[in-house]
Amino acid sequence: MIKVVLLGAGNVGVNLFKALQNKNGIELVQWYNRSVIQYKQGDSVVPVTTQLNEIVEADLYLISVSDTAITPVSKALENKKGLVAHTAGSVALSLLEGHQNHAVFYPLQTFSKQKEVDFSQIPLCLEANSEENLNLLKSVAQAMGGPIHLIDSVQRKALHVAAVFVNNFTNYLYTIGEELCKEHKVPFSVLQALIAETADKIKTIPPSTAQTGPAVRGDQKILEDHLQYLTKESHQQLYQLISASIQQHG
Amino acid sequence: MIKVVLLGAGNVGVNLFKALQNKNGIELVQWYNRSVIQYKQGDSVVPVTTQLNEIVEADLYLISVSDTAITPVSKALENKKGLVAHTAGSVALSLLEGHQNHAVFYPLQTFSKQKEVDFSQIPLCLEANSEENLNLLKSVAQAMGGPIHLIDSVQRKALHVAAVFVNNFTNYLYTIGEELCKEHKVPFSVLQALIAETADKIKTIPPSTAQTGPAVRGDQKILEDHLQYLTKESHQQLYQLISASIQQHG
Repeated sequence: MIKVVLLGAGNVGVNLFKALQNKNGIELVQWYNRSVIQYKQGDSVVPVTTQLNEIVEADLYLISVSDTAITPVSKALENKKGLVAHTAGSVALSLLEGHQNHAVFYPLQTFSKQKEVDFSQIPLCLEANSEENLNLLKSVAQAMGGPIHLIDSVQRKALHVAAVFVNNFTNYLYTIGEELCKEHKVPFSVLQALIAETADKIKTIPPSTAQTGPAVRGDQKILEDHLQYLTKESHQQLYQLISASIQQHG
Repeated sequence: MIKVVLLGAGNVGVNLFKALQNKNGIELVQWYNRSVIQYKQGDSVVPVTTQLNEIVEADLYLISVSDTAITPVSKALENKKGLVAHTAGSVALSLLEGHQNHAVFYPLQTFSKQKEVDFSQIPLCLEANSEENLNLLKSVAQAMGGPIHLIDSVQRKALHVAAVFVNNFTNYLYTIGEELCKEHKVPFSVLQALIAETADKIKTIPPSTAQTGPAVRGDQKILEDHLQYLTKESHQQLYQLISASIQQHG
């Protein structure tokens, strides 16, 4: 049984908390969160603490707090022998090098507290300072069920930037679609099938070859027509820049 | 039985051809395409012609050709009594007003010849010059099974622009993700779960409230870090402009 202490109750922390329960080979022995949220699942209630000086012994400490809080939280684990890992996409492994055993356990997904995600579908990006520590992480990752990737700090940074493009920026394009619908009294749901198919297509066709639309066709008439049609300056700028990028990309 | 002639064999045409076969109440009586593609489905073979002067009589003529070809193709239908409809998102109904019966039958989806789509999931945006013609379109749309929306030419233009944002531009963001992965020898498939979840989330949470990431958090450190990290100028420009738009949007 691998004993795990989870630290943090943000979007990632809450989802990890749910995902770590009732997993073969894993015992979630404590949850540190500042707001004393206590989740019950079945009959098991994981002990919660709001005090960093009350953290118990464990094999793995998963620090799932905001990037800037990782260092102060990890300081409280200085005398622990277990493996200390953070879950952040944009923070290097070296931030934890003050600990003899340190690692990164990065679930590459977007999390919100309102919508539970299926961890068996989430890629887990692992990095550790030793083979032994990596094996411990792998065991935990395997129990969670998702695909496992060995990703070093430089690659993880690339992934984090890529995630901003395909998740945060994509969601903003959806927001523009929502705005245009609202302006013309069309339900946004009309666009949902298109959004789903666009995301689904890249499972079988690489996006670089799946590109369609007026920009890649070089349909100057439609491009000008759309630009004239858009009333918000920020929408026009985005339309122009992305269209130009698509055309340069070829 | 509603007799339908389909004109065109582009991405939309080929998918409509497949979708119109073996549908209750619909008889696909002819397919006009310039390249003599002949698809077989079961034992039914739809007659194909490459000649516009050979078009037979029908209740509905579905013109599914490039925007600029709609007018020349529709000219060949001048003496027909049936309903003449185009399938284009960006073309007004009025382009066909030379025909007594005219309409628009716009399936709001992205089509490619390599990947068959499920028409029962595709919103059909309908507009016609009379109640009677609209009812004919509705019958065809119902047989195809997707949700039906009555969308006028102004609304359809808004949808077409919105579709460019949520489909063409989103696919370009996926392409950037693919490039960043390639550059750092990470399989692009690592991002697929994130892409799927981003698209899925907006079914339950409107994108304007689902926005996450460094820009909306105002995390200036990460923003500068990512900008320094990106090596391609067009990636930097996009990163800056979209981040600024997200921040202005608030």
